[in-house]
Amino acid sequence: MLIVFTGNGKGKTTAAIGQAIRALGHSKRVLMIQFIKGPWKSGEYEFAEKNSADWKTKFKIVRAGKGFVGILGDKLPLAKHRKAAQNALKLAKKEIKSGKRDLIILDEINVAVNLKLIKAASVLKILKNLPEEKTIILTGRDAPKSFIKAADLATEMKEIKHHFQRGRAAKAGVEF
Amino acid sequence: MLIVFTGNGKGKTTAAIGQAIRALGHSKRVLMIQFIKGPWKSGEYEFAEKNSADWKTKFKIVRAGKGFVGILGDKLPLAKHRKAAQNALKLAKKEIKSGKRDLIILDEINVAVNLKLIKAASVLKILKNLPEEKTIILTGRDAPKSFIKAADLATEMKEIKHHFQRGRAAKAGVEF
Repeated sequence: MLIVFTGNGKGKTTAAIGQAIRALGHSKRVLMIQFIKGPWKSGEYEFAEKNSADWKTKFKIVRAGKGFVGILGDKLPLAKHRKAAQNALKLAKKEIKSGKRDLIILDEINVAVNLKLIKAASVLKILKNLPEEKTIILTGRDAPKSFIKAADLATEMKEIKHHFQRGRAAKAGVEF
Repeated sequence: MLIVFTGNGKGKTTAAIGQAIRALGHSKRVLMIQFIKGPWKSGEYEFAEKNSADWKTKFKIVRAGKGFVGILGDKLPLAKHRKAAQNALKLAKKEIKSGKRDLIILDEINVAVNLKLIKAASVLKILKNLPEEKTIILTGRDAPKSFIKAADLATEMKEIKHHFQRGRAAKAGVEF
């Protein structure tokens, strides 16, 4: 099953993490590959790190990206971001092929495609012939139409209201 | 901070659970009160149950509802559903007042209001004067306008595509 979480609102990555917790509750194995890693340690990463060894083999998070691209003072050459995203996609391909994970989350992969770090067609290629019992989640705003078309389930997280509009800073445990 | 996750798409409760995991990663304490409990054991509940005692004190899930209301063969008198939802709200009030939890999720509370099990005004009353460092999340489709108005952050999870449309059954680890 292919799931897409897109849109400009809050809740895409967190919905994927929630999905991971549900799967873990049913004793499934989960991998999250983060294509665009934030500049700080995220709560979900610290959570996965903190927990038992057994837990780690069940819910693994790989921060494969090189941080925000072109914003927040990013000075990394685009070629390095591209290389990182392509390596992340290679890892995704390998993990999907191995069949060891029941749920694989490709976090912010929609953004990686929009930034032209990887091609939508390359992503769709590794998702072909996905066994029925495996779930893949693609997150990030502005999902390519081809991802929506291929998806079994797609939700647009639409911003109705955001506290940043009121001038508050990002809050640990909520935003990251 | 008050957050609302609403809309007809998938990802409202899971986004709240993801938020819980982020908060837990930052060593915060989380409570989820489920106003409309499903007829089966959810993955998140089993997950919270399975984990260590320490874990349980940090992330507690209380299934306070009496299952789906008026659908899927529900024959429970409405008065019993109402009583259960009102007790859930009392618990929420007590927990918010105690200040012991950093994040409290009132899951499907929007639905409980729409079903007239509890009043929107009663919910808003217990959310008044919320300390800045505490977060409350309200989930469920068709959030009352007064909740959106009171919220710092609101996302509409809008269904773009759903696999049920293709006639598949609910899948353990994805739907519940």
